[in-house]
Amino acid sequence: MKEEIYFSDEKAQKFAERIREKNPLFICVIGNTETAKIPGISAAGANPEITDFTPPADVELLFYGRCRCIDGVPITPDGIPTPALITMSALELAEIPKRTVVGGLNVYPKAPYVELGGLPGRSIQTGNAVDKVEEVLENAKTFGKSISSTVDYLVIGESIAGGTTTALGVMTAMGIDAGGKVSSSMSSNPHDLKMRVVEEGMENAGITPGELKNDPIRAVSCLGDPMIPAFAGLVIGAAEEIPVLLAGGTQMGGVLSMVRAMNPDVLKNTAIGTTRWIISDEQADLQGIVKQIGDIPIIAANLDFSKSEHDGLRAYEREVVKEGVGAGGITIAAMLKCEEITIKDIVDKVEENYGKLTDF
Amino acid sequence: MKEEIYFSDEKAQKFAERIREKNPLFICVIGNTETAKIPGISAAGANPEITDFTPPADVELLFYGRCRCIDGVPITPDGIPTPALITMSALELAEIPKRTVVGGLNVYPKAPYVELGGLPGRSIQTGNAVDKVEEVLENAKTFGKSISSTVDYLVIGESIAGGTTTALGVMTAMGIDAGGKVSSSMSSNPHDLKMRVVEEGMENAGITPGELKNDPIRAVSCLGDPMIPAFAGLVIGAAEEIPVLLAGGTQMGGVLSMVRAMNPDVLKNTAIGTTRWIISDEQADLQGIVKQIGDIPIIAANLDFSKSEHDGLRAYEREVVKEGVGAGGITIAAMLKCEEITIKDIVDKVEENYGKLTDF
Repeated sequence: MKEEIYFSDEKAQKFAERIREKNPLFICVIGNTETAKIPGISAAGANPEITDFTPPADVELLFYGRCRCIDGVPITPDGIPTPALITMSALELAEIPKRTVVGGLNVYPKAPYVELGGLPGRSIQTGNAVDKVEEVLENAKTFGKSISSTVDYLVIGESIAGGTTTALGVMTAMGIDAGGKVSSSMSSNPHDLKMRVVEEGMENAGITPGELKNDPIRAVSCLGDPMIPAFAGLVIGAAEEIPVLLAGGTQMGGVLSMVRAMNPDVLKNTAIGTTRWIISDEQADLQGIVKQIGDIPIIAANLDFSKSEHDGLRAYEREVVKEGVGAGGITIAAMLKCEEITIKDIVDKVEENYGKLTDF
Repeated sequence: MKEEIYFSDEKAQKFAERIREKNPLFICVIGNTETAKIPGISAAGANPEITDFTPPADVELLFYGRCRCIDGVPITPDGIPTPALITMSALELAEIPKRTVVGGLNVYPKAPYVELGGLPGRSIQTGNAVDKVEEVLENAKTFGKSISSTVDYLVIGESIAGGTTTALGVMTAMGIDAGGKVSSSMSSNPHDLKMRVVEEGMENAGITPGELKNDPIRAVSCLGDPMIPAFAGLVIGAAEEIPVLLAGGTQMGGVLSMVRAMNPDVLKNTAIGTTRWIISDEQADLQGIVKQIGDIPIIAANLDFSKSEHDGLRAYEREVVKEGVGAGGITIAAMLKCEEITIKDIVDKVEENYGKLTDF
């Protein structure tokens, strides 16, 4: 097993031991932000206008094995398929239950979901990106606390196009140096564009970097997205009681910044679960972000699509997409839940599912 | 314990043994129907127009110990308080987790809830009462199935004003003789008015009693309310895997009629959990309804407010309100979960909670 999972340190290994053979619940938090429609920002959709459909389509894939609000599956402009394929395969193999939580959407999934009263986000260029942050956070805390008594631990992932840019916005407003460190779904990471968008937003909000260090509600309201307060609230509500694996890449920096500012104590019950593609991403620096926030261990699944028969999956080895929909974290959770499940089993299941979904 | 719980038969006792000391999840399914606004139909609100607020206020009480969308707590026109007081007290004492599921609402709770894509219902007088029944049913089945792997069993209750009239509508359309048998939140049960409303709806829908015996989707679409397909879908999705206690009175007849028509096999994993006030209601006949649907055991909590210091609670002994928000079923579940909890403990906690909420 060891070579199949990367641990940042001994603390990461200890976290894995705590959740080994335990029963998790997977929650996918979804949202939309107009930030995704700025040309060149997001590849989480075949074109910017369709990025609104990616999060609902992702969770439909998890629940029904096929998308309902779009044909096929979400793809990048180059045709690379959504990491939700990995998530659905791992959930299926390990029989892990799942929920969808909505932060704020333009397009709703044709599947059951938990509503927290949020609204879709505006572009962070406005400096006034998200409404009802406090209400969503409170509702998410209530839901997270309530759900914590029914499962051993939570794995929380997200799907929101444009999410690394909004994470950069929140982190910058809260004094985390994340410029040049957030990942991208594209093979060439548009760091300069992202930072220009964040700077425009800060100017319109009338704030300077680090000014909102102790005001996470305002940081997210000005420069975040509606996924963040929902995700952060779930973590705060649940991690007082049970371990929480934050399943994602550099977007987790925005979530964790909010969690730390509201309730730093719960961080000791958290870890980040992600993919090898994020750890080896030379155009980003997850560990450089996380160490500024706290001593939070990182665990990564050594997913490998290099031998895939599908071009769309082999592309993951060329540093596209990399992570999303909790793919890395749920792969780890599947292997820890069932000792007999290997990375190869999950990769084979992804091959099979992708084959079925693209077999016309 | 025995004298504290009524069992319809040996099967009911066996059901109780299966769930004893197990960990349930309580789900409250809420909805609105314009049927509640027909004068004289519902006492679930101080006046007909305010009945839309009763279901969201009920679940706010469960989640926060106070209502948010209204001042005080929901009351009848005579000032008798909501049975959600019983539910909140039992949930609190036995530390039972809870969820809200929305069937279709005009007024949403200021609390997290699961959305299934439903809409509020029109009056059944129209003969065209509920939209999207099939979608809500499917989403509820998916959610029920998914949640069944995380808990030992489900207790499902409801809050919808006007719900006994819509239950009468669905049962009549599906060939269950329920006329004069459904309960009422009022002390004098308006059976004739309810049947006239149902007959008007059937005429406008162009159907005769029993004609929709095998078409539950159409029966609910014509003469039901949006709570019913959500509740029935949860039962169908969950009861394939785990026991489900349907926590309610004669409204359960509408839900069970739909469940039987869709998937009769799951009925063997169900029981009705209600209050003594329903069992001893001489103006209604729960057992006369249920025996037409199937061999479904009935369990009732011997709640007794006769010694309460509050007029509003003593009124329950005069056959008002009687049941709702899963009060009877969750009282049973609380006592079965924790052997040390007695009916007196729950009644005392209701006294205490009601005192706090009305202490001006």
